[in-house]
Amino acid sequence: MNSEPRSLSYVAGTDSVSIIDQTRLPGALVIAELRELEDFCRAITTMQVRGAPLIGITAAYGLALQLRRDPDPAQLQVAAQDLAATRPTAVNLQWAIDRMLRCCLPASEGQRAALALAEAEAIAAEDIAACRAIGEHGLDLLQGLAKASSGEVVNVMTHCNAGRLAALEYGTALAPLYLAREAGLKVHVWVSETRPRNQGASLTAWELQQAGVPYTVIADNAAAALMQAGQVDCCIVGSDRTAANGDVCNKVGTYMKALAARQHQLPFYVALPLSTVDWDCASGADIPIEQRAADEVLTQAVSASDGSISVQRLSVEGATACNPAFDVTPGEFVTALITERGVVQARSDALAALRQGSDA
Amino acid sequence: MNSEPRSLSYVAGTDSVSIIDQTRLPGALVIAELRELEDFCRAITTMQVRGAPLIGITAAYGLALQLRRDPDPAQLQVAAQDLAATRPTAVNLQWAIDRMLRCCLPASEGQRAALALAEAEAIAAEDIAACRAIGEHGLDLLQGLAKASSGEVVNVMTHCNAGRLAALEYGTALAPLYLAREAGLKVHVWVSETRPRNQGASLTAWELQQAGVPYTVIADNAAAALMQAGQVDCCIVGSDRTAANGDVCNKVGTYMKALAARQHQLPFYVALPLSTVDWDCASGADIPIEQRAADEVLTQAVSASDGSISVQRLSVEGATACNPAFDVTPGEFVTALITERGVVQARSDALAALRQGSDA
Repeated sequence: MNSEPRSLSYVAGTDSVSIIDQTRLPGALVIAELRELEDFCRAITTMQVRGAPLIGITAAYGLALQLRRDPDPAQLQVAAQDLAATRPTAVNLQWAIDRMLRCCLPASEGQRAALALAEAEAIAAEDIAACRAIGEHGLDLLQGLAKASSGEVVNVMTHCNAGRLAALEYGTALAPLYLAREAGLKVHVWVSETRPRNQGASLTAWELQQAGVPYTVIADNAAAALMQAGQVDCCIVGSDRTAANGDVCNKVGTYMKALAARQHQLPFYVALPLSTVDWDCASGADIPIEQRAADEVLTQAVSASDGSISVQRLSVEGATACNPAFDVTPGEFVTALITERGVVQARSDALAALRQGSDA
Repeated sequence: MNSEPRSLSYVAGTDSVSIIDQTRLPGALVIAELRELEDFCRAITTMQVRGAPLIGITAAYGLALQLRRDPDPAQLQVAAQDLAATRPTAVNLQWAIDRMLRCCLPASEGQRAALALAEAEAIAAEDIAACRAIGEHGLDLLQGLAKASSGEVVNVMTHCNAGRLAALEYGTALAPLYLAREAGLKVHVWVSETRPRNQGASLTAWELQQAGVPYTVIADNAAAALMQAGQVDCCIVGSDRTAANGDVCNKVGTYMKALAARQHQLPFYVALPLSTVDWDCASGADIPIEQRAADEVLTQAVSASDGSISVQRLSVEGATACNPAFDVTPGEFVTALITERGVVQARSDALAALRQGSDA
C-alpha cells in the first residue's frame, strides 16, 4: 500500500517482531522490538500496539516466537493465558490465541514451532485480505453517497483509530477511505480526537496525513454539532467485539455518535472482519468492558519528537475519575456492518447467514 | 456561601476589580486585577473569566470603571462596542452592556459614573439572588429524584462549568447541588471533562472539591455509557444563550448528552437566569456559534502549580482542526428549564408566560 513501516513486521527466520510504538505517536516514529513473551504482553497492555485486529496478530506472533524458544505444550498454555489476560474486550485476541492453540497443540513437538509460525503468518495475511475486502465493500457505499451528493466531497466521520495502525494494512474503518483515495473519489475525514487516549488526534490524523487523505480533527464533543450543521455524510467506525445479534462494542464515545447519526438520519457503519464477531456473545450486555486507569482521564500524556513522553495533570489534585474504555452501540443504531464477506444488517439472522460456510 | 475568593470582586470606591484567573486553574489560584478597558476585554476573550452570567457582570464593571475614568458618552459607546465584540455567543454580555447603556446614557455627566457603578452592583446582586433561586427550584427536582430512588445518592451529570466560577455564587447548573449539600441530600456529580478547554476537569472539579461535593471526572465520551449502565439520574447543564422557543445553546457536547438522556429516559435540565434568554432569537438556528482557534483542539494547555501554563501538541504537525465552541440543543430534548422564576418547559408559550411582569 505504501512504503511506511507497518504497525507490525516479522522477518522470516528471526526471533522478534518489530512494531511501531503507538504510544510515541504522533511525536515520534519509534520502532520497538518484541522478543520475549513479556514484551508481547506489555506491548498489548500498555497499548504500544492496539486495535482489535492488531492485538490478535501480535498475540499470534507472541505464541509463535514462544514455541521457537520452547516447544513445550504446557509452557504454550501458560503463554496463551498470559496473553489472553492482557486486555479483556477485543475478542480478536482470544480468537487468535484459540486458533493458534488449535493449530499447534495436536502437532508433534518437532513440527509445532514451524506450524505456529505459518499460522501466525496466515492470520496476518488474512487480515490484509479481509481489510482490503472491507475497503472494497465500503467504497461501494461511499460511491453511492458521492452519487447522491452529485460528486461533492464525501464527509466521513470516524472515531478512535481503526486504520492501518489498528491492523496491518488498510485497516477496517479507514480502508474504504484509502481505496476511495486510490479510486479518485473525493473524501474528507472528520477525526474525533477520542479522549482519553487521543487515538484519533494522535494516530488517525498521523496515518491519514501520511497517506495524503484530507482530514480535520475535532473535539469528541463537536460530533453532533457537525451533523446538525449538515457537514457529515456518514460515520464509519471499527469494533473491538460485536455480539452475535449485531450489538457493537467499540471505543467509548461510539454510542453517542450513533445516537447523533440516528437523530440526523445519517448512515452509521461499522467496519469489522468476522474475527471480531463473538458468536458466543448473545448480545452487547455480555461483553466485558475494560475499565482503565483514572490517570488516563486526569492527566495528559504527550509524546515529544525525541520519543519521550511527558505527563501533565488536567484536573484538580485528589480528583477521581471513571474510565470505561468501550461502550456498546445496540445493533438497531447501526445502519450496516461492513465485513470482508459483504455489507450486512446488524442483526442475528443477517450475521448468522454470513457465517454459513465461514470458518470464522 | 463560603470564604473562598469569588470569581469576581469589586471593593467599593476602587478603580479595579479582582478576578480568579480561570486559565490558571486547577494548577494555581491566581488573582488578577482588571483596571483598564483592555484588561476587561482581554479577560473575556482569553477566558480568564467565562460563563454567561460572569462575562455579563465583568462587562458591566468594565463600563462602570471606564466611566470613573472618563464620563464621556462617546467613549462609553466605544467601550461598549469593544466589550460586545469579545465573544459572540453568550447573550448575557450584550444584555448587561445594553442595561448599562440604558441606565447611564440619559444621566447627566456628573451622575453617570455613580449610576453606572450602582447598576453594575445591582447586576451582580441580582445574579447572586437569581442563582440562589435557581438552586432552590432545582433542589425541589433533586428531592423528587431522591424520593423516587428511596434516598439513594442522586447522580447528576453536568457539562462544562456552570458553577460559582461561571457566576458569582452558587452558579446555575451547580446551584441545586450546593443547596442539596446544605439540605443534607446525598448527591454525586459526574463531571465531563469538556474538551477542548477542559472546563469540567479543571473548573467544575476544582469548585466541587472546594465545596466538598462528591464528584467523579469522566471523559466526554463516557457520558452515554454511564447512562446506559444506569449510573445517572439526571443531567443539569447551563446555557450561554437560550432562544425564545426554548432551544438551548451551551458548550459544545451538550447536545449529545441531551440525545443520550432522551434515549435513556433521563431528565435533562438546563439551569439559567432569564438574562440568558434572547427574546429576539426566534430559534436556536439564529444563535451565532463562536468558532475558536484550532490550537485549542490540537494542543493541550496545562496550568502548573507555579501559575505557569505549558502547551503541548496532541496531534500531528500540520493537522487542522474545527472548533465550534457551542452547540444548540432543540427545546424538545430539554425536560425543563430551571430559572429564577421557576421550572418551565422549553417552549415559546411557557417562556413567554414567565416573561410577563419580568423586566428581563
